[in-house]
Amino acid sequence: MDVLQAIASRYSYRGAFTDAPVPREDLERIVQAGLQAPSASNTQTTSYVIVNDPAKLARLAEIIPNSEPIRTAKAVIVACVDWHDPQSERPDFGPVNYGASVENVLLAATGLGYATLWMEGWKRGEGAVEAVTKLLGLPHELQVQVLIPLGVAAQPGQPREKRPFGERAWWNEYSA
Amino acid sequence: MDVLQAIASRYSYRGAFTDAPVPREDLERIVQAGLQAPSASNTQTTSYVIVNDPAKLARLAEIIPNSEPIRTAKAVIVACVDWHDPQSERPDFGPVNYGASVENVLLAATGLGYATLWMEGWKRGEGAVEAVTKLLGLPHELQVQVLIPLGVAAQPGQPREKRPFGERAWWNEYSA
Repeated sequence: MDVLQAIASRYSYRGAFTDAPVPREDLERIVQAGLQAPSASNTQTTSYVIVNDPAKLARLAEIIPNSEPIRTAKAVIVACVDWHDPQSERPDFGPVNYGASVENVLLAATGLGYATLWMEGWKRGEGAVEAVTKLLGLPHELQVQVLIPLGVAAQPGQPREKRPFGERAWWNEYSA
Repeated sequence: MDVLQAIASRYSYRGAFTDAPVPREDLERIVQAGLQAPSASNTQTTSYVIVNDPAKLARLAEIIPNSEPIRTAKAVIVACVDWHDPQSERPDFGPVNYGASVENVLLAATGLGYATLWMEGWKRGEGAVEAVTKLLGLPHELQVQVLIPLGVAAQPGQPREKRPFGERAWWNEYSA
């Protein structure tokens, strides 16, 4: 799929996935795309755990209830960020870096025909971050950030409307 | 260009650009790609100023000296972020959002045959942020973050090596 088409057609899918499997080879290509993202000073602070084991997926659905995509996903890609020391003089590149990396994951998955969802709100669930950290065996220095359930959409959707170009982009100088 | 190829071939170009123009239509498509990026709760906190006026470009090169890409670019795309109130209870989605949006810009430009550079270090230059803010007429609520010079590379390069898959990605559970 053409890159501009992938960018234009990616959307947040909140429905159920079909039973179609997501082959390991596709998951590797999708996560590899995430690892190829640029990062500030090439710090590469974003890491991934690829969950496709049915028992782990079932446990994820217990930790994060009431989510159709999580409940029906054959695979969930989990983005983690290297822990940042607030005492460090280096700015925290983690959020910008994982923003770019997760977008690559979503675009690669879109290009391969999968629907995706960028999930962060689940972290507000009581004990959810601790439970996912334990489930995935994450060490202290890796902080779980984004869950990306993906698969074949049972009821494909489309991108949400965005504010128009003229309200968010200007030529040479800002104008109200 | 295929989306996976665009992701794999995007790289940080630090050399000079040729005199080949970057048509306005291409710049619009590239920035439109940035606006199509996902954002937390669809907040759309990323905005752009597209600089292609020769006088403004010359002034940018004065503010940010010793940068081949800035000195020779026929266009510089400037990513800005809505100001975040640190008193707000809402987390600051700005960095994650612009990470995803800027990556879309870079991928779209790559797909159209342009070399790009994601520049943030320039903000450490004394008075640089204030000077760019003034040059672009940015209001208080828009904070300039990333400069993206782009054009046809005089001496094309290639992606930097990244740490291997096995060091940054795991199946179902982290392993050292």
